Amino acid sequence: MNKGFTVWFTGLPGAGKSTISHLLGKKLKEWGRNAEILDSDVVRTNLCQGLGFSKQDCDISIQRVAFMCKLLTRNGVAVLSAAISPSREAREKARKEIGNFVEVYVKCPLEVCVERDITGLYQKALKGEIQDFAGVSDPCEEPLNPEIVVETDKETAEESTNKIFQKLIELGYVSQTGSAGHVYSPEEEDKIKERLSRLGYI
Amino acid sequence: MNKGFTVWFTGLPGAGKSTISHLLGKKLKEWGRNAEILDSDVVRTNLCQGLGFSKQDCDISIQRVAFMCKLLTRNGVAVLSAAISPSREAREKARKEIGNFVEVYVKCPLEVCVERDITGLYQKALKGEIQDFAGVSDPCEEPLNPEIVVETDKETAEESTNKIFQKLIELGYVSQTGSAGHVYSPEEEDKIKERLSRLGYI
Repeated sequence: MNKGFTVWFTGLPGAGKSTISHLLGKKLKEWGRNAEILDSDVVRTNLCQGLGFSKQDCDISIQRVAFMCKLLTRNGVAVLSAAISPSREAREKARKEIGNFVEVYVKCPLEVCVERDITGLYQKALKGEIQDFAGVSDPCEEPLNPEIVVETDKETAEESTNKIFQKLIELGYVSQTGSAGHVYSPEEEDKIKERLSRLGYI
Repeated sequence: MNKGFTVWFTGLPGAGKSTISHLLGKKLKEWGRNAEILDSDVVRTNLCQGLGFSKQDCDISIQRVAFMCKLLTRNGVAVLSAAISPSREAREKARKEIGNFVEVYVKCPLEVCVERDITGLYQKALKGEIQDFAGVSDPCEEPLNPEIVVETDKETAEESTNKIFQKLIELGYVSQTGSAGHVYSPEEEDKIKERLSRLGYI
């Protein structure tokens, strides 16, 4: 079985969590890994019908997502969690519960996120139509020690994705050479390289 | 990767769904399979905080459990769902969504379940303290075509578990010989047997 892990994206609404999670998911699948993406749409439709944006509702949502990540992670899946998680405390709980946890801080200035406003939620929040909106009327607590920071106002989504992917290799969660659903040990990799070289492929 | 599947237990509260799911989970793990159990306790604590017993709440709960089962199943996990699911329609939706779906009807007469009343919920429902309780004030729709029926007033929990386990082998979800996390093909099994025989082990 592969080593499961959860990449937990933290950042303001509109910072680029979902976009990067989908690019990373695609890359992991090409690399031979099973990946599951839990972004805001997926979470709202399947796990958190009826929950709003209040701190309490957000915390319940994070708890459910974390539970799901835990079960998938311990079964060898690469899980990408990209739903909103403004509370540092709730994220730390998720980290403890899940174990193999890689926090990615998707950093982007508020004004850029408001400008993008892909979902139209900032407009509503700024007009007061949504209460407790993270980044506007509620805090969105920055992570203190994320495994990696990507800056989406300075990098392309592809660059951010590649940085995270390299980090996953560095942390030993993803193999350097890719595989079809199987992570090779360094010894196995050496043997494969030797064979390919013998056959004249590399 | 193993072939994932979901065993979906249907039956009255107190019929024995949870007990059998835990015995089956143990057996599957001994057989080398990753198994996850989603019983009422797990579901209420982690996925459905705040939901009650009304048909609407039950349907939302089933939808969440089904989503979880789907993701685990497509990643090669053996999932045992033992939460209450009184609605036939909601179960049929779950079956379609999950795909590799084995419905087990845990059959037990209502009077026996009331007599057992392990959780004390029947007492409360009969006194009218809980509204919409499946089996008492709300219907608990019997499955029309379950893959297997076990009768917990006539069999021991171990007997029911063994019947289900045999069915899983028959359906090709579990290998006949057991393994450490890997289901062998018939050809691989033959080779292993031949080797063991050659070495004098069998």
